[in-house]
Amino acid sequence: MSNLSMYPVTLNGNDIQNKRQEIRDYFHNTFSLFEKVFELLKNDDVFYRKSEITRHPMIFYFGHTATFFVNKLISMKVINERVDANFESVFAVGVDEMSWDDVDSKNYSWPKVDEVREYRTKVRGLVDELIITLPLNLPISQESDMWVILMGIEHERIHIETSLVLHTQMPLEFIKEVDEFKACSHSSAAPKNEMLSIKAQHIELGKEKTHHLYGWDNEYGTYEEDVKEFKTSKYLVSNSEYMEFVKDGGYETEEFWDDEGREFLKDSKAAYPTFWVLENGDYRYRTISKLIEMPLDWPVDVNALEAEAFCRYKSQKDGVIYSLPSEAEYRAIYNQSGLQDLPDFHESRANLNFYHYASSCPVNEFSFNGIYDVVGNVWQWSRTPIRGFEGFEIHPAYDDFSVPTFDDKHALILGSSWASSGNLIMKHSRYAFRKHFPQFAGFRYVISENSNDEEIDIYESDDLVSQYCEFQYGDTHFGVSNFAIECAKIASKFATKKGKALDLGCATGRATYELAKDFDEVEGIDFSVRFVQVGANLKDNGFVAFTSKEEGDLVVNKKVTIEELGYENLRDKVSFWQGDACNLKPNFNSYDLIIATNLIDRLYNPRLFLDTVDERLNEDGVLILTSPYTWQESSTQKELWLGGYVDSNGVEVKTLDSLKNVMSDKFELLHVQDLDFVIKETARKYQHTISQVSIWKKR
Amino acid sequence: MSNLSMYPVTLNGNDIQNKRQEIRDYFHNTFSLFEKVFELLKNDDVFYRKSEITRHPMIFYFGHTATFFVNKLISMKVINERVDANFESVFAVGVDEMSWDDVDSKNYSWPKVDEVREYRTKVRGLVDELIITLPLNLPISQESDMWVILMGIEHERIHIETSLVLHTQMPLEFIKEVDEFKACSHSSAAPKNEMLSIKAQHIELGKEKTHHLYGWDNEYGTYEEDVKEFKTSKYLVSNSEYMEFVKDGGYETEEFWDDEGREFLKDSKAAYPTFWVLENGDYRYRTISKLIEMPLDWPVDVNALEAEAFCRYKSQKDGVIYSLPSEAEYRAIYNQSGLQDLPDFHESRANLNFYHYASSCPVNEFSFNGIYDVVGNVWQWSRTPIRGFEGFEIHPAYDDFSVPTFDDKHALILGSSWASSGNLIMKHSRYAFRKHFPQFAGFRYVISENSNDEEIDIYESDDLVSQYCEFQYGDTHFGVSNFAIECAKIASKFATKKGKALDLGCATGRATYELAKDFDEVEGIDFSVRFVQVGANLKDNGFVAFTSKEEGDLVVNKKVTIEELGYENLRDKVSFWQGDACNLKPNFNSYDLIIATNLIDRLYNPRLFLDTVDERLNEDGVLILTSPYTWQESSTQKELWLGGYVDSNGVEVKTLDSLKNVMSDKFELLHVQDLDFVIKETARKYQHTISQVSIWKKR
Repeated sequence: MSNLSMYPVTLNGNDIQNKRQEIRDYFHNTFSLFEKVFELLKNDDVFYRKSEITRHPMIFYFGHTATFFVNKLISMKVINERVDANFESVFAVGVDEMSWDDVDSKNYSWPKVDEVREYRTKVRGLVDELIITLPLNLPISQESDMWVILMGIEHERIHIETSLVLHTQMPLEFIKEVDEFKACSHSSAAPKNEMLSIKAQHIELGKEKTHHLYGWDNEYGTYEEDVKEFKTSKYLVSNSEYMEFVKDGGYETEEFWDDEGREFLKDSKAAYPTFWVLENGDYRYRTISKLIEMPLDWPVDVNALEAEAFCRYKSQKDGVIYSLPSEAEYRAIYNQSGLQDLPDFHESRANLNFYHYASSCPVNEFSFNGIYDVVGNVWQWSRTPIRGFEGFEIHPAYDDFSVPTFDDKHALILGSSWASSGNLIMKHSRYAFRKHFPQFAGFRYVISENSNDEEIDIYESDDLVSQYCEFQYGDTHFGVSNFAIECAKIASKFATKKGKALDLGCATGRATYELAKDFDEVEGIDFSVRFVQVGANLKDNGFVAFTSKEEGDLVVNKKVTIEELGYENLRDKVSFWQGDACNLKPNFNSYDLIIATNLIDRLYNPRLFLDTVDERLNEDGVLILTSPYTWQESSTQKELWLGGYVDSNGVEVKTLDSLKNVMSDKFELLHVQDLDFVIKETARKYQHTISQVSIWKKR
Repeated sequence: MSNLSMYPVTLNGNDIQNKRQEIRDYFHNTFSLFEKVFELLKNDDVFYRKSEITRHPMIFYFGHTATFFVNKLISMKVINERVDANFESVFAVGVDEMSWDDVDSKNYSWPKVDEVREYRTKVRGLVDELIITLPLNLPISQESDMWVILMGIEHERIHIETSLVLHTQMPLEFIKEVDEFKACSHSSAAPKNEMLSIKAQHIELGKEKTHHLYGWDNEYGTYEEDVKEFKTSKYLVSNSEYMEFVKDGGYETEEFWDDEGREFLKDSKAAYPTFWVLENGDYRYRTISKLIEMPLDWPVDVNALEAEAFCRYKSQKDGVIYSLPSEAEYRAIYNQSGLQDLPDFHESRANLNFYHYASSCPVNEFSFNGIYDVVGNVWQWSRTPIRGFEGFEIHPAYDDFSVPTFDDKHALILGSSWASSGNLIMKHSRYAFRKHFPQFAGFRYVISENSNDEEIDIYESDDLVSQYCEFQYGDTHFGVSNFAIECAKIASKFATKKGKALDLGCATGRATYELAKDFDEVEGIDFSVRFVQVGANLKDNGFVAFTSKEEGDLVVNKKVTIEELGYENLRDKVSFWQGDACNLKPNFNSYDLIIATNLIDRLYNPRLFLDTVDERLNEDGVLILTSPYTWQESSTQKELWLGGYVDSNGVEVKTLDSLKNVMSDKFELLHVQDLDFVIKETARKYQHTISQVSIWKKR
């Protein structure tokens, strides 16, 4: 099975043409392997099934990885033309269980599988062409257009693994066997686990921008910790070892579970691991496409809550405190095991990259200096929630890859699994999931005196997001009133009906709440999850907390509660979603009001938005545009500006005039006014902008 | 002589180490060739002679090319430590005849030649080390640190040629012979010139960012013109052909000269070309180190005013209009001659790159498809003043290389000379000089119906400069008074004596004039000539003209005269200079007032400035600092910030407190106040900043 999955390409090298060919090979291998995974679905009907109620049906994932390429290439302005605008809105978002992901099926009418296959082929051709023709320097840097291609490839590698998880959660009758995915065929009694000493080490995590392999933004930066000597289990916890916990009533004993764990038990009704099947009093085991005798010496697949419960159970039984390893402790284990990073590490040495099996295998099969499965077989849950390292910087092509997971609710999984490849099997990769999420993940336990993590910092420190928090929830300056509140007042004054409203480009959500004082229901949409999550967190957690810059690096921390804002009773009226105003999903419709605040001069194609926005409004619906018309090429190509240019006849075109031309068929212009706003950059530096508000009523 | 000068390195390639070696070889070749040129000076005393009264003595140039490397590397933050701060202030500026170049010898105490030799050796070692160790990607881009090195090398190549011009202007007794620079030893009667047809062509000038050779900022962008068929002289104008004009009284006939030409005649008392020598009624010819019989078939060396006068003379004589070729016409000649760009063009094919001679040679020696000396021998004056192409962008490492020459007073010279090498002999290079400047330049003439250039656009369109013009000379906004005027008022209030004042960081110079209402003499200094020239032009031309952004690309043109400003009588009290506040020349001293407006948070090392500023003040002198303390790493490395950080004890450090600590020994703090300013970005977008003004009296 060694040729099913190639190793990722390195970023450096001397031969450009050769590197292009390497990337092409790696891309096609990835794209094909992903499609191979979907051959496991018995027929096209299965594509419309969900593996879990909280998830999209499989057709979404099938389209999603191709759409991802196009959406990122568009937003980074590598390409200008969509392959299929409809597909690229419905397949765009909904992967993680975030409140702003819309997985309600009634909001989607899914295309035929063959249409998606055809779409994938088009995207394959597009990406192949780009790999050959894009400008390319070596080493490939994060600023390179080719980085966006590599990002698309590694994104697809993630979905190769997570799709296999979803398939394994499907009823067996929906899955067929595929030759390339053969499970391990041997198992025997499990070895007795034992504790090994890991010596004290100074650990440095994080990699440099010049590292020779692709990385997600969360991998860069620095983190240092002095790890004291500790002990780790020699093996991953096997099905056999975990069986004791199950048989001792572990799932029924409340004290082994924390609050989140008890909630998981209540919601899921779980009584044993998710890939175990109870038949006639015996536990059997589900591989992707088969039900087999329980492989006692294979690692157990559990989520983080189950792994933690096991540790509490074993601690009580042995009178010693067991826990999951921290991220730094895992690196200490890695170092002591003598492992090397790609490409020096040979894939045959561990159960990963589809080299040996399309399933787990015995926990005593792959040794590294006497420690087993340091990488491969199944992922290993960590007690460390994922956070950015010192110097963390968002990559602009995917600004919501990491930030939404820095919420202390996403725990790191370490070491990769049999289904991992690409970035997933690199030394520096960092993936994290919600603690109740099933993956091909198990655990090893440690006995450790290393302290737990630092206190949570609740204050938003993303520069741009905290600037917007200050703008929407902070102080006013130079006597200029809060812009979100003023916009909502204008909206209330001009809207004729007060049913459903859309706050498009809602940023951190203040106007969404303000509108909800007067409207029955308000949806806030922004292109960036970094912003959307502020409004969503206010709803879920009851506060907004942010830092506000004063001088240089000095900041003040600010926190505003939902009670202080007077929004306690508006929670159920507001909802927040991620979306692209130029390619909104069809279900965003039937509004009495759409307000697009400082949006049109930041869209990559404002006409795309304006040409169809009327279809989303009810009869007599009102559209409000506010903008200072600061057109800039970094947001909008000059040919697509609505104003601020001289046309081919030498006439100066102003934006308001263009808006009148574009809109007059479908809208009546009710009113135009100026509205100032002030954005604080530091205690001494502000942007003072005069927005033009234009109010349009649907004809 | 083929090995005296190497060809420049290309920017592309596959082998990084190899490219480093190529750059090293090219650097050392350049640095050594430059030093070889200075061996022509008979002894060290000659280094303190000037070739012309308007120029620095030769010692300046000898230090300048090395200093250039260091100053550019410092300002681009490639290095942090100076080699010699004093040398790097006195050798910094003064090359072109700009009003802000200070060539008054009493302001300088020049170092010993051996000290400068030693300094050059140190800089050579530094640059050599950097070429080996700097990060390097191929192709080398304008953003690369290595670009700064290439810039230093090409800058030195320019001075190799211009220093040879200066040497040739020196009295012969100051020059000795150097083996490597051997003049051409043959000449005979000149061939009769004739006109050749050049066919109509669509000409595209300008090169792309991806071009394989180094370029100055003025070479990039696009320019298109349909050139109609025209005729060009087959040969450059020879000494023989030009002799007719001299003997026919050309230098005494006013109608052959325009205003600028007549002024040149009056100032220079010229009666024949600068390298001709009249001895006993006969004209002889000056090479670098010899006086020889007039080489009648060599090209005449003249400035643009002399070339234009010749064309008027010949037009009158022949009844046909002759003119100098335009830039586009020259490219048409180039195309028809079948020339290739470097590195394909072999240096043996023309009189350039020191391959054949260290002098001109007969005009009928090097033919290209029947047109002679299309490149090499002497430069050819053009009738086109240099301007930026469409898409022109300033390179940040050398923001005043081109912009000050876009004044319609600098004419392009085309085709290179026997003393040209490096960028000077590339197809796309563009050099321009004031029309009265002597170079190794002559001319060919054309008969052409191609139109002359477009009208001059007097309105400053450099984004940042015009933003500052609007800030200092434009409208006020949000009721905030003009900042330059308010600063001058505060200065008048607190200064105890009103002798000489220094406006440091003067930008476009408004406060310099305002201070001159109250002070006897005011000097304005800015790091960037782009800014300094606005104040200087107001003094020289009597107006400031700029564009002010309204929306997108749309602007309004604004013009303010010196009379409207009420500054007519202040002209003689103000002067403008280019300078680095962290490394000011010693002659800037004896001030009663120094005002540094929004400067300290933009300096690369603010302590360097603050630690010595007291030495430049008279007794009871006053220093005024204004700043919003917007520290940013792009201007100042974090370790050098004066405030806006948390120190190693965890204490927040504010800038004002730091200033008090740094200054208290030498200054008494008189007063602190806030002062707002507003900078317009567009008609709807403004920066509103609250500067802190602190006023310090020298103890």
